[in-house]
Amino acid sequence: MSILVVGSVALDDVETPFGKRTSALGGAAVYFGLAASYFTDVRIVGVVGTDFPQPHLDLLANRGIDLRGLQVREGATFRWGGRYGYDLNARETTFTDLNVFAEFNPTIPEEYRATENVFLANIAPSLQLNVLDQMTAPQSAALDTMDFWIEGTPDELRRVLERVDIVLINDSETRELAQEPNIRTAANSILGWGPQLLVVKKGEHGAIAFANDWLFAVPGLPLETIVDPTGAGDSFAGGFLGYLAATGEITPEGIRRAAIYGSAMGSFCCEAFSVDRLAHLEPAQIDTRFREFEHLTRFDYEPLLQDA
Amino acid sequence: MSILVVGSVALDDVETPFGKRTSALGGAAVYFGLAASYFTDVRIVGVVGTDFPQPHLDLLANRGIDLRGLQVREGATFRWGGRYGYDLNARETTFTDLNVFAEFNPTIPEEYRATENVFLANIAPSLQLNVLDQMTAPQSAALDTMDFWIEGTPDELRRVLERVDIVLINDSETRELAQEPNIRTAANSILGWGPQLLVVKKGEHGAIAFANDWLFAVPGLPLETIVDPTGAGDSFAGGFLGYLAATGEITPEGIRRAAIYGSAMGSFCCEAFSVDRLAHLEPAQIDTRFREFEHLTRFDYEPLLQDA
Repeated sequence: MSILVVGSVALDDVETPFGKRTSALGGAAVYFGLAASYFTDVRIVGVVGTDFPQPHLDLLANRGIDLRGLQVREGATFRWGGRYGYDLNARETTFTDLNVFAEFNPTIPEEYRATENVFLANIAPSLQLNVLDQMTAPQSAALDTMDFWIEGTPDELRRVLERVDIVLINDSETRELAQEPNIRTAANSILGWGPQLLVVKKGEHGAIAFANDWLFAVPGLPLETIVDPTGAGDSFAGGFLGYLAATGEITPEGIRRAAIYGSAMGSFCCEAFSVDRLAHLEPAQIDTRFREFEHLTRFDYEPLLQDA
Repeated sequence: MSILVVGSVALDDVETPFGKRTSALGGAAVYFGLAASYFTDVRIVGVVGTDFPQPHLDLLANRGIDLRGLQVREGATFRWGGRYGYDLNARETTFTDLNVFAEFNPTIPEEYRATENVFLANIAPSLQLNVLDQMTAPQSAALDTMDFWIEGTPDELRRVLERVDIVLINDSETRELAQEPNIRTAANSILGWGPQLLVVKKGEHGAIAFANDWLFAVPGLPLETIVDPTGAGDSFAGGFLGYLAATGEITPEGIRRAAIYGSAMGSFCCEAFSVDRLAHLEPAQIDTRFREFEHLTRFDYEPLLQDA
């Protein structure tokens, strides 16, 4: 099955302790789409300005990504700037120029409307609802969101949450959304609103998938090289949802594997600036990374000592 | 094999979003000793004042802990106060009254000196060295430390690090000790100084064990009830080192299991104030918790899709 992603396509200025890049290819739909493209057919709905470089479009097209839903509008592309400190866990947004993204109103092309899987990246909940209304046969819908919408438009957000199957957000967003400090209690609240699955992304600390009666956690893989974590969460979502769309296996076993593939794609993303690593992978490298997570986490049960 | 722990025995005032306790049993040697007592024989070296309540001593003795090395000095017991905020990850120390602990100079009783395993809890590196000098046949020595010693007495700390086999510290301490933001690179530096194993404790995010040519990560178990995280790191260390001392199995497989037992004991510690949960467990409960970590982390490999 194919997957449709609706979200930002951007030019990023990023500074980390390891260097800086200006006007680099970025945006949630880009990271998500590239990561998912290793698993299934991807369709992007987004907007760029007339300044958007053709090589960036070529790179996406070369990964087989369908760009018919990417509007080109008169004006400048969405630009975002960020700076990371010493341990890369905290980042500061240095600027946000929405440009043509400010009036983004996602129109789903006719030929996209029957796409079975949809990922609503972090955009206004009212636009996320608008997208869902245009889809004719969604089998699985997922969303990301952020504190800005949790605080600013909670009612609209709640309405989208009632209509999606999978929520992918980070741990502070989980706590804020549920207004509950205990992450497990918070997850239960959110699952009570409609979604079947909540995936809590924790950056270098891994991820936890919460379903109604089970949960799965994967630790972060401690990478030898971390250059730029921008886009890692969207890359995780791309690997996770791309794998599920490809297999159609929405079972506990399938979801567990999807979380490993998501973690693998998130880890590759961090190893270079922009999409430099994510866009140029071989399936064998993804397979090897999956295996690294296996070695990282495996242990064997032995009963507790009898004489303890 | 037995294990000897040298560290604080304290009376704690703790406040969390779930309540508060005053003059509660605490201290690194107490949490460590109770956790380790489910696996092996434990000997404590520490100091308390004449105000230390007899029921606390009885509780430790009832768990089979050998208290012959616990000095009772004229004066007040070490007291510590802490307050936790909303998500329990950050805590503020409200006071530290060292009292009799200020002049603590660990003298290892004659009958303890041949103990095979030693855990040097977070005390001055010079005292940690002093303890190692008194041991006659240590097979495995482990230490904890903190930013205060990393910044204040780096040379003494480095000398102890060269003489221990296992280091158990948290992630920010790991980065600070190695002066390196990348956790994997930092771990490699620290292992280069002498220890065979570095265990990085990450609180609710789990733990990572780094050896020279392999690593193991366990995520935190998202608990339904978290009341008070005080002592969770020392409880982790007690489960981890207690299991290793009991089995003598310092192999990758044994260390992986030890990290799960450590995580189990850390998780129990958080479920109640002070040692209220940690001191009253049945082996079957520990076994069940181990199994919960298995369910939490298991996934099966399947090759990446051929047509991806």
